[in-house]
Amino acid sequence: MNEKNEVQVVIGGKVLTMSGAEDELHIQKVASCVNRMIRKMEGTEAYHALPTDMKPLLIELNIAEELIAAQEKEEQLEADLQLRENELSETKQRLVDAELRLERYEGKRRK
Amino acid sequence: MNEKNEVQVVIGGKVLTMSGAEDELHIQKVASCVNRMIRKMEGTEAYHALPTDMKPLLIELNIAEELIAAQEKEEQLEADLQLRENELSETKQRLVDAELRLERYEGKRRK
Repeated sequence: MNEKNEVQVVIGGKVLTMSGAEDELHIQKVASCVNRMIRKMEGTEAYHALPTDMKPLLIELNIAEELIAAQEKEEQLEADLQLRENELSETKQRLVDAELRLERYEGKRRK
Repeated sequence: MNEKNEVQVVIGGKVLTMSGAEDELHIQKVASCVNRMIRKMEGTEAYHALPTDMKPLLIELNIAEELIAAQEKEEQLEADLQLRENELSETKQRLVDAELRLERYEGKRRK
């Protein structure tokens, strides 16, 4: 589905039309993320002390900060997942070996 | 360590001093993320067609878009990790059971 969805969102008090291939919920999530950061920055002294043309940069940097943190978390989770997969694969192999040995004993008993 | 690191970065051609509790590499990564998005947007017609005061919003939205995607990936990875951990825990239990049964056979043989 490559249709473009057009969604009206409110960002920083302005009504905008955003379009994208993603569904409306996804587009609203993106808009909410920017709104959350605008509100967060508006609650800081650092933001109010900046000249008007520098304010958006502080918002960009703070969203980027969360993006970098999320990417680092993603790398950590991928490494954890790899470790678990290795451990699972090794445990499965030990289980197969144990079941083969058991089969020899239980097979003999059945004869 | 709660010392603040001050790091000089170049964003959109301007030299800025950023400070944070994180190390210099982390701060540079955040600045690079914003620079990458500025360059990406500057390569699009949509960005050039916007009035100057709306341009930063497009950059904010596009970084937020990547953040939402990274958070969704994170949720997926956490769900995958949970599945693997459940499977691992179940496989370990089966291995313990098989080893106990084996011990009974091998214990008897040793007597």
